[in-house]
Amino acid sequence: MSTMELLKKANAQKTRLACLSEEEKNQALLQMAEAILLDEEAILEANRQDMDGARGKISDVMLDRLSLDHGRMLSMAEGIRALISLPDPTGQVLETVVRPNGVRIEKTSVPLGVVAIIYESRPNVTADAAALCFKSGNVCVLRTGKEAYRSAHAIVKAMQKGLMACGQDLHCVQILEDTTHEGAKELMTAVGLVDLLIPRGSARLIQTCVQNSLVPCIETGTGICHVYVDKDADVEKALNIIENAKTSRPSVCNAAEVCLVAEDIAERFLPLLKERLVDKRDVPVELRLDKRAGEIISGTPATEEDFHTEFLNYILAVGVVRNVEEAICHIATHSTHHSDAIITENEAVAEAFLKGVDSAAVYHNVSTRFTDGGEFGLGCEMGISTQKLHARGPMGLRELTTYKYLVRGEGQIR
Amino acid sequence: MSTMELLKKANAQKTRLACLSEEEKNQALLQMAEAILLDEEAILEANRQDMDGARGKISDVMLDRLSLDHGRMLSMAEGIRALISLPDPTGQVLETVVRPNGVRIEKTSVPLGVVAIIYESRPNVTADAAALCFKSGNVCVLRTGKEAYRSAHAIVKAMQKGLMACGQDLHCVQILEDTTHEGAKELMTAVGLVDLLIPRGSARLIQTCVQNSLVPCIETGTGICHVYVDKDADVEKALNIIENAKTSRPSVCNAAEVCLVAEDIAERFLPLLKERLVDKRDVPVELRLDKRAGEIISGTPATEEDFHTEFLNYILAVGVVRNVEEAICHIATHSTHHSDAIITENEAVAEAFLKGVDSAAVYHNVSTRFTDGGEFGLGCEMGISTQKLHARGPMGLRELTTYKYLVRGEGQIR
Repeated sequence: MSTMELLKKANAQKTRLACLSEEEKNQALLQMAEAILLDEEAILEANRQDMDGARGKISDVMLDRLSLDHGRMLSMAEGIRALISLPDPTGQVLETVVRPNGVRIEKTSVPLGVVAIIYESRPNVTADAAALCFKSGNVCVLRTGKEAYRSAHAIVKAMQKGLMACGQDLHCVQILEDTTHEGAKELMTAVGLVDLLIPRGSARLIQTCVQNSLVPCIETGTGICHVYVDKDADVEKALNIIENAKTSRPSVCNAAEVCLVAEDIAERFLPLLKERLVDKRDVPVELRLDKRAGEIISGTPATEEDFHTEFLNYILAVGVVRNVEEAICHIATHSTHHSDAIITENEAVAEAFLKGVDSAAVYHNVSTRFTDGGEFGLGCEMGISTQKLHARGPMGLRELTTYKYLVRGEGQIR
Repeated sequence: MSTMELLKKANAQKTRLACLSEEEKNQALLQMAEAILLDEEAILEANRQDMDGARGKISDVMLDRLSLDHGRMLSMAEGIRALISLPDPTGQVLETVVRPNGVRIEKTSVPLGVVAIIYESRPNVTADAAALCFKSGNVCVLRTGKEAYRSAHAIVKAMQKGLMACGQDLHCVQILEDTTHEGAKELMTAVGLVDLLIPRGSARLIQTCVQNSLVPCIETGTGICHVYVDKDADVEKALNIIENAKTSRPSVCNAAEVCLVAEDIAERFLPLLKERLVDKRDVPVELRLDKRAGEIISGTPATEEDFHTEFLNYILAVGVVRNVEEAICHIATHSTHHSDAIITENEAVAEAFLKGVDSAAVYHNVSTRFTDGGEFGLGCEMGISTQKLHARGPMGLRELTTYKYLVRGEGQIR
């Protein structure tokens, strides 16, 4: 099916899906989870073919992301089931106003309509994204990279069986057959047929979508996260938080990439930082030091570029700043506005940082690694928005909805 | 000053403006309103020059929109003052979560940052938009059409005097000197320097912005609004509402452009509609009739194009549909998702319409003319969003904010 045909079929399902009850949606989610497990063999076989095709063409990290096994199948199904217990984000009356003329206005949450997701090689995003869209009443259109197409297609086929098993239309969850760049562009420019496009993957993919989309698009994920160690920091807290933020999972967007240290504490703190992150670790972190940091400890000299880079690796850029104002200023020009932290025991300085840093999540004495739908108590996550419109930070079910005003009266005119 | 220089100066004010107290902002609004009245003579003189330059080049309607007089000056100042009594939309804790690990997460409303407004020839938009931005803690960058530049510039100058009178930085309210198309494009593509772009004006202006913007942009205004007269309609209510929706102010976006009539009531209703809108009116409405309507009453035969047109004039497209389902379906493909109404005494049919129509405001037995910030109780309005992300329908102060998560802890790591 061509992309345009598929999008038209998706749009034809919008109204019906928006009108399903919570009970009907949960029933279908249950069936979709079961269908994935029933089709496990076919899905794993499709995945083997994808792996065979991709080997030698993509990195080992990417290959690992692509691969499925029984454990990943189970957690995919579990991820779908977990949505059942979360409240339906649609049909909520967010506000009610009765005007003096008797007109009653109800601001009510509703699905966005058709949500498209462009992603790369992780097949589990398929089930995850489709289930999140379905629970929030949105028709889902998936577009995966060609390396993962067979796996994703097999997962979608299973989910469609689940939909049909409870009388729902299979077109509520769809995957584009066209995995070319032209196909992606067609999706990005299908004005009127896509209510929201969410790119999930590399910085390059996200930038391509943001720059080329004529349909509404949410920028997700890129995280150049900072930890600022204030002069009044508790040094042990600072070391624990930086080690956690940098090394607990360096490949994710909420990992720290930059450490800024107040000059008044730099001579004391930096040697301890080197000890903790370099000398004492089996997998040492490469420290890229600005001029002033390099005068205190040894490491790689940093380029200006290093302070603009999402390393996603065991590398940390380290700089010395005068004080919290200079840290805020540095973050304003270098951060991707994802997650930034201050370590200090000084409440006034902490509040200045919390107020002054313009990022989705701003932390005081907490690791940046907590920016996550689950950790924030949303129960699930479609991605982390680094933009300011509509949704900021972790996007859960509610962020996949919009609202409309239902206005009831008895013939009022203006 | 070049557009880029000006945008950089605007961005330099973001943090400071975001940190102002409600009291400080209200004080500055008061001073801005006073400064506009103090500068009345200079502003009216600039407006006379604009009018002289524009005469013969733009339509009389546009000339009227461009012109200022003492009354309009007073209402401009009054519009600014009215914002003082509205609550500060920023700094509100929207939600608080304390996680099991003791991490405290506060979702807090904050300004967007730099809000740019591209508009056409109405000078009062200048004061209005600047004041709304200021109250919501946003730095405002205005770009007016060249016909209105002198007037808008004089208004901005006065407002800047007001800002300075209470110690605020004049760069919080700025106007682009470059009124060329290239200048507008520079604004639309200033990624990282503009947090939100709002076009206000003609459908063409809005489409140009939406299609060319790389910065976040909200689509406003275009309204192809429908009134569907159900077979169970109270005919008198229907006639009153349609006449009001069509003729009370045909040039605005919430005016009705299309009337759909259920076939079971068409033979009875259409002659009454013609009597009310054509025969009995001093300024008759031109009815553009689809085939079935044309078999019942006389009027201009409608083209398919007429059902896709925002007339903004005394013209109404009229069509006959089978029932509410067909009406919903027609609206889904022809509406701009602004405001659509059903007239019926049948509650079940009304609910089906309210649920099934995917527009910012959906009305039951009320005129579409109520889609307006003031009428919705927002106290003010920056425009009416016809898109689904971020803001839908009338945009007040709150819709000019975003949020961030403030996360406080005692050294928690993940």
